[in-house]
Amino acid sequence: MEAPGGAEGERCPHPIGKMLDVPFLPFCLLLGLLGSMCVAFVSAWCQYWRGGFAWDGSTQMFNWHPVLMVTGMVVLYGAASLVYRLPASWSGPKLPWKVLHGCLALAAFTLAVLGLVAVFRFHNDHGTPNMYSLHSWLGLVTVLLFCCQWLAGLSTFLLPWAPAWLRGLYKPIHVFFGSIILLLAAASCVSGINEKLFFSLKNGTEQYKLLPPEAVFANTLGLLILLFAVLVLSALARPSWKRPDASCPDSRQPLLAAER
Amino acid sequence: MEAPGGAEGERCPHPIGKMLDVPFLPFCLLLGLLGSMCVAFVSAWCQYWRGGFAWDGSTQMFNWHPVLMVTGMVVLYGAASLVYRLPASWSGPKLPWKVLHGCLALAAFTLAVLGLVAVFRFHNDHGTPNMYSLHSWLGLVTVLLFCCQWLAGLSTFLLPWAPAWLRGLYKPIHVFFGSIILLLAAASCVSGINEKLFFSLKNGTEQYKLLPPEAVFANTLGLLILLFAVLVLSALARPSWKRPDASCPDSRQPLLAAER
Repeated sequence: MEAPGGAEGERCPHPIGKMLDVPFLPFCLLLGLLGSMCVAFVSAWCQYWRGGFAWDGSTQMFNWHPVLMVTGMVVLYGAASLVYRLPASWSGPKLPWKVLHGCLALAAFTLAVLGLVAVFRFHNDHGTPNMYSLHSWLGLVTVLLFCCQWLAGLSTFLLPWAPAWLRGLYKPIHVFFGSIILLLAAASCVSGINEKLFFSLKNGTEQYKLLPPEAVFANTLGLLILLFAVLVLSALARPSWKRPDASCPDSRQPLLAAER
Repeated sequence: MEAPGGAEGERCPHPIGKMLDVPFLPFCLLLGLLGSMCVAFVSAWCQYWRGGFAWDGSTQMFNWHPVLMVTGMVVLYGAASLVYRLPASWSGPKLPWKVLHGCLALAAFTLAVLGLVAVFRFHNDHGTPNMYSLHSWLGLVTVLLFCCQWLAGLSTFLLPWAPAWLRGLYKPIHVFFGSIILLLAAASCVSGINEKLFFSLKNGTEQYKLLPPEAVFANTLGLLILLFAVLVLSALARPSWKRPDASCPDSRQPLLAAER
């Protein structure tokens, strides 16, 4: 995937191309605003239309599921993925940024696990089977991939025992799956919101097909999540926002070893 | 997005890295097999479990919708996107490959439009409102983006009047949205399959939550579609599979003009 204004645009900088070449930080602020809107929308949906929150196996417990998954697997995950795009991370020791990247990803993963606990506990307390819908299959594949990605990242890049050639070999795989997991998470969210609306809006004047305000609101949330994911992917893909040393062998040195 | 075995892997070729560096053509065969499986699975689902096909406004007319969307927006679209990754396209005149790329994309778009006609006609004949679910919003956004992408590609790269600087400016945008549209199409398919299964499997012993064979089959179809899309995106992102001259100004010359 190549981002607009990418390498080719830079090699042939036309005045209009230069004009379109926004710096990373304002873009980051836009992403922060959009990510906050996603969290606010999903929370408002569950609070205002779906009865609010509790941790007792009820439908209010289920409501933690969308909020925690969107906050963890999309917004916090997106923030974690962008750490190395901050110009401040390009100079000085890399270890603090690695730790920040790993901690944000761990926080995202923790929220995702809590989000899964919320839906499994709700299903179990209501005698509903788990893991039957395509949404649940895709969601679980996404969280499992994320778990593997986090563990492989930790043991390859943060712990000192991986040889340099293994780091070099694994780095583009880690970067690629980083984007793939985000797009799978966004696809999971969209299928989950769609599914929940069909479950919740089926009777009386509040049917999904009559497009009541809740449906418009939650559909908009789905599109906002996709827009956030697409903008994060575009930021990750943009060559001029990557660490200038991203392809130097130095960036693959064992970091804990280098810091000792 | 950076593909496994990408630029960095090439700059530091470790024996294991070289071993993993599969050539494009066998990968392309694998993609062809996977794409054919997607078409076969969606056709078998609609034929065997959903009553087959007709063009008369009935549920059999609806069945054309998933088949045409998966075949057009995922499989044919994926094929169109990979044209410039064929090593044969790297030498000689570029025009035939541009025409092939544009024709495959046009075929994909035509199938998508027929797929939309199938679902709108079915809805209209049954008094069901159109465009209420998140799946339908996302699907329409995807097809509209594809339409804009095709028209902008035609007028910028194939017709002779766009200046070189505009081609240079638009090319990375076209490439980026090429990937984004594929991932939106895959997300649309997943939400659509999920939605259709909830509609179809709701009574008796064939409820979705009891995971009857149809549900396992269609869930598998959803994961196959995502796997196909992810592999196409990885092929598009892999630096060693890109046209060697992809960043040379030559590749942005007006092609019809160059061929005259």
